[in-house]
Amino acid sequence: MTATSRIGVTGLAVMGANLARNIARHGVPVAVHNRTAERTRKFMREYGGEGEFTAAETVEEFVEALERPRRIIIMVKAGGPVDAVIDELAPLLEEGDILIDGGNSHFNDTRRRVERCERDGLRFIGTGVSGGEEGALLGPSIMPGGDREAYAEVEEIFTSIAANVDGTPCCTYVGPDGAGHYVKMVHNGIEYADIQLIAEAYDLLRHVAGLDVPAIARTFEEWNSGDLESFLVEITAKVLAKTDERTGGPLVDVIVDEAEQKGTGRWTAQDALELGVPLTGITEAVYARTLSSLREERGRASGVLRGPVPSEEKDRKELVDDIRQALYASKVVAYAQGFAQMHAASRTHGWDLDLGAMATIWRGGCIIRARFLDRIRDAYAERPDLENLLTVPYFTEATAKAQDAWRRVVMTATEQGVPIPAFSSSLSYYDGYRRERGPAALIQGLRDFFGAHTYHRTDAEGAFHTRWAQDGTEVRTDT
Amino acid sequence: MTATSRIGVTGLAVMGANLARNIARHGVPVAVHNRTAERTRKFMREYGGEGEFTAAETVEEFVEALERPRRIIIMVKAGGPVDAVIDELAPLLEEGDILIDGGNSHFNDTRRRVERCERDGLRFIGTGVSGGEEGALLGPSIMPGGDREAYAEVEEIFTSIAANVDGTPCCTYVGPDGAGHYVKMVHNGIEYADIQLIAEAYDLLRHVAGLDVPAIARTFEEWNSGDLESFLVEITAKVLAKTDERTGGPLVDVIVDEAEQKGTGRWTAQDALELGVPLTGITEAVYARTLSSLREERGRASGVLRGPVPSEEKDRKELVDDIRQALYASKVVAYAQGFAQMHAASRTHGWDLDLGAMATIWRGGCIIRARFLDRIRDAYAERPDLENLLTVPYFTEATAKAQDAWRRVVMTATEQGVPIPAFSSSLSYYDGYRRERGPAALIQGLRDFFGAHTYHRTDAEGAFHTRWAQDGTEVRTDT
Repeated sequence: MTATSRIGVTGLAVMGANLARNIARHGVPVAVHNRTAERTRKFMREYGGEGEFTAAETVEEFVEALERPRRIIIMVKAGGPVDAVIDELAPLLEEGDILIDGGNSHFNDTRRRVERCERDGLRFIGTGVSGGEEGALLGPSIMPGGDREAYAEVEEIFTSIAANVDGTPCCTYVGPDGAGHYVKMVHNGIEYADIQLIAEAYDLLRHVAGLDVPAIARTFEEWNSGDLESFLVEITAKVLAKTDERTGGPLVDVIVDEAEQKGTGRWTAQDALELGVPLTGITEAVYARTLSSLREERGRASGVLRGPVPSEEKDRKELVDDIRQALYASKVVAYAQGFAQMHAASRTHGWDLDLGAMATIWRGGCIIRARFLDRIRDAYAERPDLENLLTVPYFTEATAKAQDAWRRVVMTATEQGVPIPAFSSSLSYYDGYRRERGPAALIQGLRDFFGAHTYHRTDAEGAFHTRWAQDGTEVRTDT
Repeated sequence: MTATSRIGVTGLAVMGANLARNIARHGVPVAVHNRTAERTRKFMREYGGEGEFTAAETVEEFVEALERPRRIIIMVKAGGPVDAVIDELAPLLEEGDILIDGGNSHFNDTRRRVERCERDGLRFIGTGVSGGEEGALLGPSIMPGGDREAYAEVEEIFTSIAANVDGTPCCTYVGPDGAGHYVKMVHNGIEYADIQLIAEAYDLLRHVAGLDVPAIARTFEEWNSGDLESFLVEITAKVLAKTDERTGGPLVDVIVDEAEQKGTGRWTAQDALELGVPLTGITEAVYARTLSSLREERGRASGVLRGPVPSEEKDRKELVDDIRQALYASKVVAYAQGFAQMHAASRTHGWDLDLGAMATIWRGGCIIRARFLDRIRDAYAERPDLENLLTVPYFTEATAKAQDAWRRVVMTATEQGVPIPAFSSSLSYYDGYRRERGPAALIQGLRDFFGAHTYHRTDAEGAFHTRWAQDGTEVRTDT
């Protein structure tokens, strides 16, 4: 076999297969390989005619088929399987060859793999790829991190296959080691929050505003022509408009209400806790899925836990527009929190992330693509060191304008007994963040009382302890 | 040196010193040791007369001073220092000797150490000790996990030094490997939620009900004679009643409003995410501390983010009682979530935790001791397999009774712009948990649309996918 392929893809499940097809369609010769050769043959039968593919049945053939430096995209399940593929390939590769993990790996695994490959003289790129099956085929958002020189060797291919918005490809080098997978993780976390907020809006439109499902579908369709314009709002309208073939009713009514998850939302929340970044919106979204999965328990609880007495009808039209505004304001908070997390991670890990560039490459291809991201890009263009999106004039005004409606929605939902964990936690974050002095002074007083953990004073330097159990005097403890 | 001490304590910072004194006061001969011998000498100068102490300046002397099987309590900083002490002691010990880690170690570290000691022929106990300095000296709540036979060798000492409520010691064997430290971790998590809820109540009493600090202190004192009776409510009254020596005003007003944390609350939330248990109250409490620590950022944000226009005065007396009820109901949720987490952890790790016993040993000695825990103990006595405390008649009725007030408080705070992350997330959990069918069906529909993640139907077995981008038909994917 002669080395004629510019890049290889190993792992031909749907994401890998579609990525390989996308590359080939851009005129790049691609070697394809899969652990079980039958899948490679099937790929060739179905798509072999779409471009210049070389099918490799063994890893040896696969490696031989590639030009040097070899560029290999690994598209297998995150975790052990990625290490297994690296273990198998590494002995066959030569100095400077490039391994690219395009799965949803945990960024800490990616950091470890970058180091491991460096020791072997190889170069490693961990890249987020967002957009699902369709994105992989037609243009995903790509978030590569790791070896910068190695990225230069694949940049042309990556930017050509990525989605493209106004002439700008949705792909840029993110940063060293695990930065690419980190940013993809936060992207997914934001996606969790976005989806949960949409679910809460749907729930309120249905059970408080009293709209039927087709009317809610139309509402989301309308909303998609304004500030909320986004892929997720667009497909919400489509999913809600879908009639079930069997029952003739809305499809959404026959779907079991247990939301599943694959882990990236959970990782985002766990890392925010680790970094000390208040990430309430995304975390509540993860917990809401968890609670939804306790379906039988909820069924039993619904029989015994009391709800409120329903109150008088609200003005439906006003309520629907209030919900739209609450959705928008809560979404601003979710993004502000996610971007604050990336900001903190960048400092902690020394990644020097360009957050405006992240907003830019999320405008197309990925699940959270939205008009809104232009505003975020603009915000960072103006203030690259921005500590929180909420403080940018555009978002300050947007939340100021929406806040009365936002508060009314939280109050109405609370009164009616409809759960709104993401709406209300976002609002509490907003109210907490704009609070110059909060009640945490009491928390520090309590901690000093029971644990002698000391406190700081507003009017003096140093750490202080009150001898609560003794004479009640205050002593300075840091001298 | 002859082996005359029944037990040894290494690490004589305040917790270790007080634990050693507590043991000696119960007539048990104790060997004491510290890495720097000067601290051992200081301990002997100050407390040597309180009991039968043997001061050891080296680890060799320390080990020689102990009867066999040797019982050694390690009271050093969690993390690396614990491993360092084990590394130093292990070569000097003999088969069957017992190491007891009494610090706030992560339960996964404890699991690892139990295994490691087993390989060395040693026995390991990881134990939670709650109650702060004073508890360690006068009677803590003790949560030992690990080797059960080893526990039998220290049970007499542990139960004698523990707090005691109505003749029952606040100490019981928790379960294998990391179970003791796990339960202590959740205890601390609940403590975070308890404290955050108190802080929110204080904030509302002050800034919405308009009470001054001394009046709020009196309010908490009153509340401490009812359902809310607990150590934390009691000391809240004391902290708020404290006048600052320098300014003559309330001490709480000169304390910097940045709440610190040592990590167990964060661990609790991270593990809940790992287990898939909705732990919103504790997690919001952790995030609230994180947000409080962004003090300068908050200061800047307060200048630009808009709040609501203050509305008319509320009936103050009714509001104060509403806040009491909201505090109680939210507290019930926080405990229900924490106990559900222990239930899930017990199944995951095969610990067979007796949750009623946990409530029992938390009634005295520890920071969250409260009248309330008797109710939890009763609940598990009646239904040991209880899946959620909320569904027990006592708590069902308590929340049913409190819910109108709870909703009014969340609504008022929302209207007034006072952040109440723990109050409102607890209420959203309550409303979500009692919901037989929630909006997660839409989430599953969206996930199927963009990622072909499939969904289940309420009326048929199997996993289904709608071919959204193709002909819109539904296909079964698991056959």
